[in-house]
Amino acid sequence: MVDRKFVVTPWEVTGEVDYERLIRDFGTQPIVGPLAKRLEGILSDAAYLVRRQVFFSHRDLNVVLDDHDKGKGFFLYTGRGPSGPMHIGHILSFYFTKWLQDKFHVNVYIQMTDDEKFLEEKRSLTYEDTQKWGQDNILEFDPDETFIFQDTEFVGHAYPMILKIARRINYSTAKSVFGFTGETNIGMSFYPAIQILPSLFEKKRCLIPSAIDQDPYWRIQRDIAEPLGFHKAAAIHSKFLPPLTGIQDKMSSSKPETAIYLNDDNKTVRNKIYRHAFSGGQASIEEHRKLGGNPVIDVPFQWLYMFFEPDDKRIEEIRSEYKGGRMLTGDLKDILVEKVTKFLREHRERREKARAQVHLFKKDGALAREMWKHDFSKS
Amino acid sequence: MVDRKFVVTPWEVTGEVDYERLIRDFGTQPIVGPLAKRLEGILSDAAYLVRRQVFFSHRDLNVVLDDHDKGKGFFLYTGRGPSGPMHIGHILSFYFTKWLQDKFHVNVYIQMTDDEKFLEEKRSLTYEDTQKWGQDNILEFDPDETFIFQDTEFVGHAYPMILKIARRINYSTAKSVFGFTGETNIGMSFYPAIQILPSLFEKKRCLIPSAIDQDPYWRIQRDIAEPLGFHKAAAIHSKFLPPLTGIQDKMSSSKPETAIYLNDDNKTVRNKIYRHAFSGGQASIEEHRKLGGNPVIDVPFQWLYMFFEPDDKRIEEIRSEYKGGRMLTGDLKDILVEKVTKFLREHRERREKARAQVHLFKKDGALAREMWKHDFSKS
Repeated sequence: MVDRKFVVTPWEVTGEVDYERLIRDFGTQPIVGPLAKRLEGILSDAAYLVRRQVFFSHRDLNVVLDDHDKGKGFFLYTGRGPSGPMHIGHILSFYFTKWLQDKFHVNVYIQMTDDEKFLEEKRSLTYEDTQKWGQDNILEFDPDETFIFQDTEFVGHAYPMILKIARRINYSTAKSVFGFTGETNIGMSFYPAIQILPSLFEKKRCLIPSAIDQDPYWRIQRDIAEPLGFHKAAAIHSKFLPPLTGIQDKMSSSKPETAIYLNDDNKTVRNKIYRHAFSGGQASIEEHRKLGGNPVIDVPFQWLYMFFEPDDKRIEEIRSEYKGGRMLTGDLKDILVEKVTKFLREHRERREKARAQVHLFKKDGALAREMWKHDFSKS
Repeated sequence: MVDRKFVVTPWEVTGEVDYERLIRDFGTQPIVGPLAKRLEGILSDAAYLVRRQVFFSHRDLNVVLDDHDKGKGFFLYTGRGPSGPMHIGHILSFYFTKWLQDKFHVNVYIQMTDDEKFLEEKRSLTYEDTQKWGQDNILEFDPDETFIFQDTEFVGHAYPMILKIARRINYSTAKSVFGFTGETNIGMSFYPAIQILPSLFEKKRCLIPSAIDQDPYWRIQRDIAEPLGFHKAAAIHSKFLPPLTGIQDKMSSSKPETAIYLNDDNKTVRNKIYRHAFSGGQASIEEHRKLGGNPVIDVPFQWLYMFFEPDDKRIEEIRSEYKGGRMLTGDLKDILVEKVTKFLREHRERREKARAQVHLFKKDGALAREMWKHDFSKS
């Protein structure tokens, strides 16, 4: 999606994203009204992410929930492109997926797209780089209902199915959906077949939590799934947690000042937020007391609102105090530092607990064993 | 290569091929002069294939022979697209490769491109079809110096290397070399990376015996091999054994009247040659005795010349008898029937002997074991 003011593709997010415009351009549906209420009812503790429109857009989410209610079931698929250390911006889809698994007890497939990250030329990653990253996002998924795989490990096993997908997608379609040019390498133009693969792992409907920039893949999936004997994928899309440096663009693994990495220590977190977090506050304390801060462009406020402060009453209190000039930029940053530090500590604990389960997710759990045995030429 | 009178691409050969024109268009070199003599000297019994310009074109063949003389060595790579039963037209490259292995004692890699045949939409093969074909070409290669693999089995193992190749080829290049259009599926546009793979199996130079229609792959290979730390591939190109039905186009697995299959029994061989082989003879015996036959357009003569009659004295005798009207169309066909029947009987014997070695070529021989152990992420 190319626009004068912003760009959103699976490989690039720049400018200030107009999410309503994206819904129209991508042809997705907003999560509002009865569907929003229905989803909030299911999510309980995580409902604020829907109420606050962080997960704001979808395809066929209602159909998935109906499938569930009718006992047909569904499955979840999400992924990660391991181009560098995991940061705060990567966690939304993973936590959301985990919450959904906890509620619905359905299978989760997590694709590590190390091949795609290698093929993206602008990154000039070495093959070794792409193998190194992306082990940070481990959460306590259900070890018998979760399969995590790296493309470079699994593509061979699933190659017959990938060929069937690739045969259905012509270059014109891929080009118009992804904006490929003559300079795009032939690996990148083939890659959509690989990202579509997990959405066809089961004959049930697939629900894909991801940031909105990944939607172009699901658009193609929905054109080819039924002729191949599978269901059209459903999707639930999140906005991007803005980079520390301002509400434009997207956090970047390669620009440390824009992001908090999951491995950053407390001191680094504090320094990054104090030095780089874009503030909507005024130039002086006096002016701030008089005019108040602007939470709309204030990154610490946006981070609290979008993820770190689930309590609706508390977040509105903060907004009002900040707008009224009673809360200073430093106060707001203090709140965020405390929240992020606590979250990262807990995340690291969860990660350490989950680390012992990696072999279950990848090889030895019930679902992983089934996937490695599955004959994809018969799919 | 598209021309008003003929088309030669890896997927299509139609019209009467002008091979001199192909050499100019593809930018290859004719095998003539001292190089032809040098190769004939090496091939001994098979030298007639070079003398008669059946193997007529090359890239860097002289460099490969120099590498050999200097003790640097080289390796051989050929392949087969298993789209149907093997026919007489498929054997040239295989026999030529075997003769070269017998002379030079070098490694041979044989790629069965079942993925490509599945991706070719016009064929509408099922995945099962492509798995069924292509076990007929087994010859007594050296079991410790030969690796035979199906793409669908091996692509996963070599995927890191395939990605490195794919990253070097942009779509414009692939499009201009292969004539891809917007309708071409994304599997086909990726496929060149897979056909190029075996040419980078060793750090030595690769010599590829194949029909000239495969040359576009080697052209791309030669642009990317050195930046990846490998040698540019060398190639030796054959003409197409014409279809029984006339010297235009190419034998087709899907048109039984155009080809003799390696499994055809004696009666079928005789029937096909008598019924379908295009003759350069005259309409009546009287006229033939008076005007003589035309060996240039006579398919039985061309088959004898291009493959089945290695004896130069004998083939010139046949040509002269036929042109002079002393040899009738039926006589010429009788000679071909006998030669083909004998060849197929011997081929079947060789195949039966070699069948027990398939597991060596694919899994258990010294080279096969090495290839399955090889870490392609380190290539």
